[in-house]
Order: sequence, then structure tokens, then C-alpha cells
Amino acid sequence: MVQAKPKHQEPRAQGPHHFADRVCARVLAADTRVCVGLDPDLARFPEELLAAHQLAGATPAPGDADYCRRAAACIVEFNHRVLEATAEYAAACKPQCAYYEAYGPAGMAALQQTALLIREAGLPVVMDGKRNDIASTAARYAQAYLGADSGPRAAAFPADALTINAYLGSDGVTPFLDCCREFGRGLFILCRTSNPSGGEIQEFPAAGPGALARRVAGLIHGWGRDLVGEHGYSAVGAVVAATRPEDVAELRALMPRALFLMPGFGAQGGGAGDVRDALDARGLGALVAASRSVLYPVPPATPAADYFDAVASAARDMRDAINAVLPRA
Amino acid sequence: MVQAKPKHQEPRAQGPHHFADRVCARVLAADTRVCVGLDPDLARFPEELLAAHQLAGATPAPGDADYCRRAAACIVEFNHRVLEATAEYAAACKPQCAYYEAYGPAGMAALQQTALLIREAGLPVVMDGKRNDIASTAARYAQAYLGADSGPRAAAFPADALTINAYLGSDGVTPFLDCCREFGRGLFILCRTSNPSGGEIQEFPAAGPGALARRVAGLIHGWGRDLVGEHGYSAVGAVVAATRPEDVAELRALMPRALFLMPGFGAQGGGAGDVRDALDARGLGALVAASRSVLYPVPPATPAADYFDAVASAARDMRDAINAVLPRA
Repeated sequence: MVQAKPKHQEPRAQGPHHFADRVCARVLAADTRVCVGLDPDLARFPEELLAAHQLAGATPAPGDADYCRRAAACIVEFNHRVLEATAEYAAACKPQCAYYEAYGPAGMAALQQTALLIREAGLPVVMDGKRNDIASTAARYAQAYLGADSGPRAAAFPADALTINAYLGSDGVTPFLDCCREFGRGLFILCRTSNPSGGEIQEFPAAGPGALARRVAGLIHGWGRDLVGEHGYSAVGAVVAATRPEDVAELRALMPRALFLMPGFGAQGGGAGDVRDALDARGLGALVAASRSVLYPVPPATPAADYFDAVASAARDMRDAINAVLPRA
Repeated sequence: MVQAKPKHQEPRAQGPHHFADRVCARVLAADTRVCVGLDPDLARFPEELLAAHQLAGATPAPGDADYCRRAAACIVEFNHRVLEATAEYAAACKPQCAYYEAYGPAGMAALQQTALLIREAGLPVVMDGKRNDIASTAARYAQAYLGADSGPRAAAFPADALTINAYLGSDGVTPFLDCCREFGRGLFILCRTSNPSGGEIQEFPAAGPGALARRVAGLIHGWGRDLVGEHGYSAVGAVVAATRPEDVAELRALMPRALFLMPGFGAQGGGAGDVRDALDARGLGALVAASRSVLYPVPPATPAADYFDAVASAARDMRDAINAVLPRA
């Protein structure tokens, strides 16, 4: 279904430019900017799938290891079928760690398996973990998600990129940059988020040019400066909400080399027009993320075959809606 | 070894005041403010312990499930022995999630077991995860760590408190507050961290009264206002570095009801005098965290019995150093 194979499966130089170039190549080859968020919510899963895993009508029991194992197996199957349905329309996939952690160690095993499934589908894995800590501890998170493919510095949860939170400043970010440089990984650093009260801190001390989000944008630009790839984008990207079009152009000017990961499309109210300012004339520069609107497009009672057809349609429609507003159009 | 049993093992009202009162009761009963950080670093473990788990001289292989299982078992035994050595000197224990995630699902199982061991020792579990996300996703993290003891809303990794990062603002914090209210849990919200470049964002736009850290302190005070317990402290605490004594008094004035979790003591250069301003006349108000200086006080070649004697001495000495500067002294 997916032609483009990610470069990390081929022998490659450990160059600094890897992640953004892989994303750009995929965007151009498949003509899509969609990042499918894998936020598994059992309460919205197709009932047929729940029944196959003895979960139909089951009371959730996240403290029970046996329940968690069944839930984890069901999540992996759901993700597998979502990937089959959506991979041809996707530029990347983004598992949201919280939805896996909620099921304990079995859930984390499902996260690991999901990352492998995404790579098997030929797509970059963007782990949405929003991790952050001081230097020596940040290095543990960096290795856990952005470490090598194998050997003593291998990643336990192998990803191509990770979302991080930069509240702790440069020395909390440096260990992640090291993995970008050494292992061809990428980052999306929280800058301006899509939730209603994001501005309480991100627009401190006031909305506009003097706000913290602009300060963070400047830091992101600096952190990524020596990690720019052949397509002109850095391995260090930024999370910029698709729900705030008034900010996008300004943040793009401050971070001309950053891939934007744009949540908020679909269920959170963002539309295709909101992301236009993030994209260049080639249609590069942003991954637009959606999870609920793609994963749960029809009621759980829908037969599974029809359910995943609807998932495929939702992803295709999202791709088309974004492509319709590209600068070329 | 430890007399005080945490209230969560007894039938109790789901009142709002639980976590801070449990911590204060423990501080007063054991006359200690030490929070033992459990940041397991195999490279510094006693060699005797590594050998017992077939890890002596082994090349780390975090991508290999069998290696990770052995490492996880070794971590649990190390933590168990650290708890035996230090529980009588500790007011709480703080596992650092990154050190467990680095070993994949097996490492997360070790985190779960470590939490149970801490509770068996009668101490509050402070998970140092620095989690953060928008509302619906934050709710998953909240349940994963601060959920109920059992039932459909059970925590997969049962903790008494969690560190979180508030960069996303109030609606990213609210789901965690709900768990404080419903299940008697607590929070420590990042305010001013101990790493050298924390000020890049936390002291934006400039150091002093107008800085973001003060803005965040004001938010923390507001979030915790209706969760104040009988000892006068809120379930909503703050991470305030012990390495920045000039900030402590000012942040205390802005957050008079917040328990401070103070990292940076010991290996990071903080001393007992730096925490004095955080403590009230009863010696309440702060947990002082140390990990490396307590966990790795002697070389790995030290015989295990002597090794853990040194761990106990390090924790006792730290308790005494802090107690020596209490306002009563």
C-alpha cells in the first residue's frame, strides 16, 4: 500500500538531517500532510473488535494485569487496522503515550508494538510523550525513545521523533538534540498549544510579540539551526496549534526551518485554512495531526469492515481538505 | 522499621486534604524531610547485585527483552534494599520514571513494583514523571498515576503524587486536580528547576518579580487554594530548586500553602541552608530530594552489605543536616 520506504531501513550515514528529510520525502511522494494520531480509546472502539478480545461490555479494570493484557492486544489490533486503512493517506503516525501508559506495562508493550507496526507501514513514528527533565534524566528519556536501532544505546520504544516540553531550558533539550544528531531522529517542541488555556503561560506576559511562545520559538530555531536537512527543514520542529491561525504566520517567521506539528485539526476545531501559513510553495513544512476525527468517525456499533472503511475515508478526506488549500492551489 | 502507616490503607473519606496531611504527619512522626529519589543507574549498582542478576560485565541491551527483564529484576532488588536501608530516615520516595522507561515494558513493570514496595514501607510515592498534555489526554496521565486504588478508575502505576509540567495551562492541570480531590492524591508542579539553564524560560522575560516562574507560582497557589489540608498545606505543591536559595523565600511568599519538592540537594550542589526558607516553624513545608548522593555513596566494588550500610548513612546524614538548620534549631 505504501511505496516509500523510510531511509532508516537502509544503510545510511548518521547525518544530522535525517528526520526532516524523511518526512519531506514522504510528504512529496504521497502528497499528504496528514499525521494520524493513535490515541486508543476503548470506549469508542468498534464493538466487534472489543468482543473478539473478550472486552465487550467489560468494566474497565486498569489495575488488573489480565484486563490490561486483553486491552493491550485489542489496542494493537485496532492500530493495525487503522494503519491498513490510513497508511496511504498518511505522512506520519503519532501514538499518544498517555493512552498506553493508562494500561500499565502491558499498555507500554502495546506502544512498542504500535511503533513497529508504523515502521512496517513505511511511516515515521512521532511519539507524543511531551517528555522533559534535567540533563542526566532527559538523556534517559532521549535514549528510551530516540536511541539507536540496536546495541547498548538502543531505544526501548523506537521512534523517529518525540514531542518534548522545553520548560526546563537548553540543558534539558540538549540530550534530545544529541539523538537527533547521532541517530537521525527528530523533535517537536511544544511552542503554542491548541487547548483553550494554553495562553496562560505561553502568552505570558501578554499576547503578541513579547510573549513566551515567541521566546520559545526563538530557542527552537536556535536549537535546530545546525540540524537542517536537504529540504531546508530542521530535525527540530515545533508544536503549533492549528486552532490559532493568527499565530501561525508569526511563528513561521520566527522558525523558518522548523517542521510544524499541528494538533487541533478536526475534533478540536481547526480547519485546513488554518494551516496554510505553515506550508511553503512545495507544500512542505507541516504535519497536521488528527486522532479522534479519523479514529472514531462512526458509532461503535458499526460492523468492523464498514468501520475501518469510514476511518480510511476520514483520513483521505482530511488529506484532500488540506491539499485543497496548498499554496499551489 | 517504619511505624506510621499511610492513611490510604485505611478506610477513609475521599476528602480534599489527604496527600499533604499524610506527608506532614510522616514528617512530624519521623522528624525527617528527606525524599529518597529512586533513579536506578545500573552502571553504579554494587557489582555483587549485578552478578546475582547475570548483569556483571554485561553490555547494556535496552532493545533486548530478555536483558530488560534481568535489568528490571535487578532494579527492583536494588530499590528494595535501598528502602530497607533508608525508610526510617525518609518522609517520601520519588521514583524517576525516565530510568524505568529506558528498559521498556519490563522497566515499567519495575516502576509498578517499586511503587508497591514504597507503600509497603509506609511511605508516600511521589512519581517523578513531569507529565503534561491537553485536557482529555492529561486525564489519561492523571488516571495512570493518580487514579483510584481499584475499580474502573484505578491507577496503572499507583502513586500518591506526581510531578507535572504546567506549560499547557489550567486545562492541562485540571484533570490532575480532579484526582487530588477525588482520590486524595497530590501534585508537584514545576516552578523553578535546579538545572543551569532553567532560567532561559522560567526567568523570562527577566529575572525577578516579573518572571514566568512567579507567574507559575501564582497559578500553582490558585490551583491549590481549595485543596488545603489540616496542617495548612495544599495537595498542590511546587518543584522549587534547592540550588537557588535567593528564589526560595520569594516563591514561598507567593505559594504559602504549597509543599515544596526541592531537588538539587547533594550531587547538584544544594545544601541544607538553601532549604531553610521553605520550612515553617514546625519544620513542615518541604520535601528535600536527593538520589545520586544517597543511592551511590561508595564505589560499585564495595560488598553489598557495606554498600547498603553506606546508603543508610547517607540518608541519615542528610536528614540530620537538614534538621540542624530547622527554624527551631
